[in-house]
Amino acid sequence: MSRPKSKSGEKPPLDRPAIRLKINIRADMLGAGKIRLLTLLGETGSISAAARELGVSYRRAWFLLDTLQACFREPLFETSRGGVGKGGSTLTATGQELVRRHQEFRAALDEIAEPYLDWLESQQSGEPPS
Amino acid sequence: MSRPKSKSGEKPPLDRPAIRLKINIRADMLGAGKIRLLTLLGETGSISAAARELGVSYRRAWFLLDTLQACFREPLFETSRGGVGKGGSTLTATGQELVRRHQEFRAALDEIAEPYLDWLESQQSGEPPS
Repeated sequence: MSRPKSKSGEKPPLDRPAIRLKINIRADMLGAGKIRLLTLLGETGSISAAARELGVSYRRAWFLLDTLQACFREPLFETSRGGVGKGGSTLTATGQELVRRHQEFRAALDEIAEPYLDWLESQQSGEPPS
Repeated sequence: MSRPKSKSGEKPPLDRPAIRLKINIRADMLGAGKIRLLTLLGETGSISAAARELGVSYRRAWFLLDTLQACFREPLFETSRGGVGKGGSTLTATGQELVRRHQEFRAALDEIAEPYLDWLESQQSGEPPS
């Protein structure tokens, strides 16, 4: 029986042991949620569209981006007001590299974790309480 | 400038990005703290000595062990009352295998994480606020 993932991608199904990865950087914690937010920002070109996709408020998305940005020397994204047309946000080269490196690391981690997670799954107690 | 680790081993120095790993298993989260508690229990043969080493109360250590144990089918440790002599606690084969597998996985993870953490460190903003 599989449970749906939350929109932020942070909560795995309970029936299979799952890795939750966070990286302490300066005073912030970088994990799947913020990487997904950056990815969505890059895909949609808009903080509000990215927030909507992630299922968080615009204020919350802005807060997450702002606290993450404070940990980095270079901008991770840029927002333009535009002229007559509406403005938009784009990932900078640094922002793109962060997303790419994080995803590559996570994929490599998931691969080496398989035998351990298989063993944990084989050892865990019966069905979780519903 | 390096900051000391906390006794639980969970808080890394702030000047180097660091990975914080948790594994969701059933309703619990398994991380460095509980693995260290099990390791100390195996080394000292005593929950209270392990708690003291970890810098937590006996009640807290027992709670951590109890919630972790509830996720597993087989016992992770055994406690004997003993007769005239004092009792003691030992890790079972399953408990020992959990510690070994976790530490091996963590070591492999730390190895593949190096290039990403190096890059993050090179990109992070100036000195953290003191």
